Amino acid sequence: MITGKNYIGNNLIAEGNKTYKTFNPQLNIENESVFTEATSEEIDLAVKLATKAYKKFSKTSGIRKAVFLNAIADEILALDDELIQTYCSETGLPEGRAKGERGRTVGQLRTFAKLVEDGSWVEATIDTAQPDREPMARPDVRKMMMPLGPVVVFGASNFPLAYSTAGGDTAAALASGCPVIVKSHPMHAGTGELVASAIIKAAEKTGMPNGVFSNLNSSGIEVGQKLVMHPQVKAIGFTGSIRGGRALYDMAAQREEPIPVFAEMGSVNPVIMLPTALQNRGEELAKTYASSITLGTGQFCTNPGLILGIKGEELSDFVANLSKDILEIDPSCMLHPNIKGAYEVNKTTILSQDKINVTAEFTKDVQSNYAKQVVATVEGSTFLANTKLHQEVFGPFSIVVQCEDSDELEEILSKLEGQLTGTVIGDNNEVSEYSEVVSALQNRVGRIIFNGVPTGVEVCPSMVHGGPYPASTDSRFTAVGVSSIKRWVRPFSYQDWPNDLLPDELKNENPLEILRSVNRELTTSKI
Amino acid sequence: MITGKNYIGNNLIAEGNKTYKTFNPQLNIENESVFTEATSEEIDLAVKLATKAYKKFSKTSGIRKAVFLNAIADEILALDDELIQTYCSETGLPEGRAKGERGRTVGQLRTFAKLVEDGSWVEATIDTAQPDREPMARPDVRKMMMPLGPVVVFGASNFPLAYSTAGGDTAAALASGCPVIVKSHPMHAGTGELVASAIIKAAEKTGMPNGVFSNLNSSGIEVGQKLVMHPQVKAIGFTGSIRGGRALYDMAAQREEPIPVFAEMGSVNPVIMLPTALQNRGEELAKTYASSITLGTGQFCTNPGLILGIKGEELSDFVANLSKDILEIDPSCMLHPNIKGAYEVNKTTILSQDKINVTAEFTKDVQSNYAKQVVATVEGSTFLANTKLHQEVFGPFSIVVQCEDSDELEEILSKLEGQLTGTVIGDNNEVSEYSEVVSALQNRVGRIIFNGVPTGVEVCPSMVHGGPYPASTDSRFTAVGVSSIKRWVRPFSYQDWPNDLLPDELKNENPLEILRSVNRELTTSKI
Repeated sequence: MITGKNYIGNNLIAEGNKTYKTFNPQLNIENESVFTEATSEEIDLAVKLATKAYKKFSKTSGIRKAVFLNAIADEILALDDELIQTYCSETGLPEGRAKGERGRTVGQLRTFAKLVEDGSWVEATIDTAQPDREPMARPDVRKMMMPLGPVVVFGASNFPLAYSTAGGDTAAALASGCPVIVKSHPMHAGTGELVASAIIKAAEKTGMPNGVFSNLNSSGIEVGQKLVMHPQVKAIGFTGSIRGGRALYDMAAQREEPIPVFAEMGSVNPVIMLPTALQNRGEELAKTYASSITLGTGQFCTNPGLILGIKGEELSDFVANLSKDILEIDPSCMLHPNIKGAYEVNKTTILSQDKINVTAEFTKDVQSNYAKQVVATVEGSTFLANTKLHQEVFGPFSIVVQCEDSDELEEILSKLEGQLTGTVIGDNNEVSEYSEVVSALQNRVGRIIFNGVPTGVEVCPSMVHGGPYPASTDSRFTAVGVSSIKRWVRPFSYQDWPNDLLPDELKNENPLEILRSVNRELTTSKI
Repeated sequence: MITGKNYIGNNLIAEGNKTYKTFNPQLNIENESVFTEATSEEIDLAVKLATKAYKKFSKTSGIRKAVFLNAIADEILALDDELIQTYCSETGLPEGRAKGERGRTVGQLRTFAKLVEDGSWVEATIDTAQPDREPMARPDVRKMMMPLGPVVVFGASNFPLAYSTAGGDTAAALASGCPVIVKSHPMHAGTGELVASAIIKAAEKTGMPNGVFSNLNSSGIEVGQKLVMHPQVKAIGFTGSIRGGRALYDMAAQREEPIPVFAEMGSVNPVIMLPTALQNRGEELAKTYASSITLGTGQFCTNPGLILGIKGEELSDFVANLSKDILEIDPSCMLHPNIKGAYEVNKTTILSQDKINVTAEFTKDVQSNYAKQVVATVEGSTFLANTKLHQEVFGPFSIVVQCEDSDELEEILSKLEGQLTGTVIGDNNEVSEYSEVVSALQNRVGRIIFNGVPTGVEVCPSMVHGGPYPASTDSRFTAVGVSSIKRWVRPFSYQDWPNDLLPDELKNENPLEILRSVNRELTTSKI
């Protein structure tokens, strides 16, 4: 049941007087539940509880953390239809998508459970003493990863489950041993509260300390600001707009004690269409990309918003086909009237620039909050000269840049902002003729795809979801996959520490039987 | 031979008109060589060359990078006596220290050479395709670390070799495939130029691209500022004061594209003396700590500037012995009159605070630029109430805090700023009675030491040299040991990329025979 209150640790509290509702974009009406924004006192209490919980939780064994994470997954599934219906009513997304995203969320939790149950992720590294070394004895030094402290997670509007309350950031932080405080996304506060209730239930059932998780309602920016500035908060995870992410990054950097902010932000995900591929299968590519651009109403961070090719008949034919195909796709609902509004504004800004040629624009009437897809073309030189055209339009929108030659293509790529993904479409080894172009693309992205679409982010150890700024604020980490746990931990060394006082991961006996580097050899052996 | 010019890539250039000299603190006179500060044009040229060099150097094989790093080590050794004499003339440090630090520097270069020659450091992670997976095919995804781009290194005043021109930051960045631009430290510009000449010789001999390394002279802060703000610079390494490191961090955070800054800054390195240990071997501990406090004239970042104990006869006796022993040590020379000046100012600030009790102060006349050691005591409550007493005094200075009980000790530790190290001195399992104290210490430090001294940083894979702010600006990385390479790299994914176009590290054949994670199993096998 949705109460509209905040979870301050295990307790539902709502002493504030600022309230708000969520919105059903399909029905174009407000939902019924009333949410109460967290007060300054509630924020402070949540952080205090998290700080206290950290003392115990940071030392909780991997096996017990795994039980907790799996219990969260179980409790989310137990929410069953209430969660799916609430999700749909707050996002306008279809039931299939809700169930798919729930599966991904549960899968992520179980993947992290497996990771910490195994335990080898802590990168245990041991160099044993050499008392007789000349000119100085070598001490015994043992290193492992330890959690940073309370982490604040800002959920995404476009992934109410997989990148929000119990999404990747939260799962990774809890797995690492960091308590989590979620700044609930106002557009899906009900979904958020339900998931929070599942986490709290799991925490209570598995004996986790009160404060290991809190969920704070917020309708504006104040709750988030207070959390980022709180001296006891030690790291921030964010998924959302460049403006929002940068604001948090700037605040965190100005703290007396600056803290790491991992913000996964916007991206236009450039796609390079090489001539031979377009010649061989331009029609098929047009169909594939018409689908990819409109998938989820274009509301994926990996949406292909920028297609680049070299001028010629092949590219012209592709544009014609893409424009035809995309208009055959039925428009769909956006997440919220505000997001629909931003889509209209951003689309209009781009289309009102000089020398933009609209080749497809859905014009028939649609329901409120449904987005009409658009494809436009522009010359390479125009694109180069006008950085407004480089900006993301969040929604079913893509711009095709017609370059004079591969030099211009390379120059454009080298001047793009950082991107989550880059895609190269090419046939018959033509890619090898474009190695400079591919290098330029590689320098601007976190993931490069061959003959595919950027939408769809596989959750696996080899995935990088992140990239040079502003794709993320720290390209040295990924937001997806088990390596994302590294955002919330720091290495810690014990020197000549008594064996019985060491954490199990570093004891001579290797009681957890984890993989360790001992005197530069990887081994599961005892010492 | 020292020319006083800048290495802009392989060329010695000095078009500027701002000149300066280094200083011999032992003789209390200026050294002869005249150095010319780099101009804006020279800075820009160095970054342009580095950006161009990155294209080639980032793709240079580990084997070739290892040859380069080993050649740097060889060329540094070939500088022989000229380097040692210049080092001593610019630092006031003795020849033995110069040779020891040279050995460490050369050792670091060779360790990184070994790391990249082996090649497994790139964390190659492969998840092969599952075309038949339901409901969606799984793509082939392969991840490895790649270098960020041009890195700027600010050397330390107190380690002209091991943490400067060809020190740990430079060695790690070059090993990763990042070109390096060093902002030369004005106090040892001659040592810096000699080492730079060795790097350039090595680069030329081993066929590295022009621009892989530059060395820019600077007497003030302008050269460093321009480097940090240059859009083509992608990361910063710094060792020095909190004020200096924080200024660079702030600038980098305010760039249009923020870049990572790893600054290793100040630390007072708290040492906890437990009662039984003091009772059993207080005299011996006093001798050991008198040495550690004055080692290298107290100019180590791991100098024990803060000793904490619980009030009682044992602690009083220890203070008396420490005060006696430290006065028997001959004062030694500081690095520069400015550093000596800062020592006097900071010492006076601390000693002029209320309720400070000086128990040892060297009073006999000493040579210019020699530092007189000091030990002072203070009550726990006074220390808690006055954060000025928490600040580092760079030099042979230590303050002993006399706590009422372990609760007060724990409170003090929890309120300290972040530290590089923490040390616990305890006997007969008394440490296990102080688990809360140890936990509080652990939360504030990067390395914890048992029954030892914090001075001395072993270069080994398990070492963490870093810690919570302000010990470093990013506790998630270490500045010492092979893991420090992770500061300069980002993960990168290839999705469905053609095997022959993949880097060798990720090819099916595993031609480098490196250790890789393939479908979640660590293996050196082919696919």
